[in-house]
Amino acid sequence: MDLKQYIREIPDYPEKGVNFKDITTLLKDGDAFKAVVDQVCSHFEGRGITKVVSLESRGFIVGGALAYHLEAGFVPARKKGKLPAETIEQTYELEYGTDTIEVHLDALCEDDVVLIHDDLLATGGTALAALKLVQKMKVKQVFFSFICDLKFIENGNKALLDEYETHSVVTY
Amino acid sequence: MDLKQYIREIPDYPEKGVNFKDITTLLKDGDAFKAVVDQVCSHFEGRGITKVVSLESRGFIVGGALAYHLEAGFVPARKKGKLPAETIEQTYELEYGTDTIEVHLDALCEDDVVLIHDDLLATGGTALAALKLVQKMKVKQVFFSFICDLKFIENGNKALLDEYETHSVVTY
Repeated sequence: MDLKQYIREIPDYPEKGVNFKDITTLLKDGDAFKAVVDQVCSHFEGRGITKVVSLESRGFIVGGALAYHLEAGFVPARKKGKLPAETIEQTYELEYGTDTIEVHLDALCEDDVVLIHDDLLATGGTALAALKLVQKMKVKQVFFSFICDLKFIENGNKALLDEYETHSVVTY
Repeated sequence: MDLKQYIREIPDYPEKGVNFKDITTLLKDGDAFKAVVDQVCSHFEGRGITKVVSLESRGFIVGGALAYHLEAGFVPARKKGKLPAETIEQTYELEYGTDTIEVHLDALCEDDVVLIHDDLLATGGTALAALKLVQKMKVKQVFFSFICDLKFIENGNKALLDEYETHSVVTY
């Protein structure tokens, strides 16, 4: 099953020159959605993953299915101010300005083996922030999963992720 | 398994007098998360559900797992301006002001049997807006699924949902 053909490309969105990868056309196809989840879970089978940490909000969709299939817990990493109990936070650089993500302080522990999942790996800024967050909680091991990896974008963030086992369904 | 005990109550959040139901403590427990998804899917088994429509962003988490388990497609209903292709929208009343949700115009068709999923049924405003959206797309049939149903809140929105088969994991 060629999963790339299910991803719609939208030229000049959200700004001129960006060729946006729209995964909603993949998600709405039950067979393609299932193939994505099965492929990721098959890759990480036997790794003892206990928690799937997913990034708000597109990362929640496949992240929820991964947690279910892996029989792991699900931990949302949300934009600042969205989680109701005590959190730890991590700020990261954007092209213009900064952003902050948070997880609940009681969401992870030292015994956890974590799969960080997001829909897209572009500059790696969000993924690196999520990594720093889970490292603050001294988890045992970290893996990464993405639907799309924009390999043509190279920078220092992505180099820092190189030492972690990563699975991407589709690469550009 | 008493799933209610996994839901954390946070008094006076997000404002004084509201006893917030925090489902993150349920989601982070792999067994409880799996029990929720299995219970909902078991309830709707054999109904021929082709699409799970979930509300941004907490609804995406269990919604993604439901779509996977039911072998259905997943359709995100998002806040206005977040979806990249052509959409239809529905505006609904909040306590103060209004809000608007959208789905992609090509996300649903007349053959679809739809399960609308959200984490919480409170006033029913969002659920009713989601119903109106999928009705505009002339889908064949609609069901509802919630994790928490705040039954002590009664109003006209909820009465309009009464004719649709609804499953809630936990009621208050």
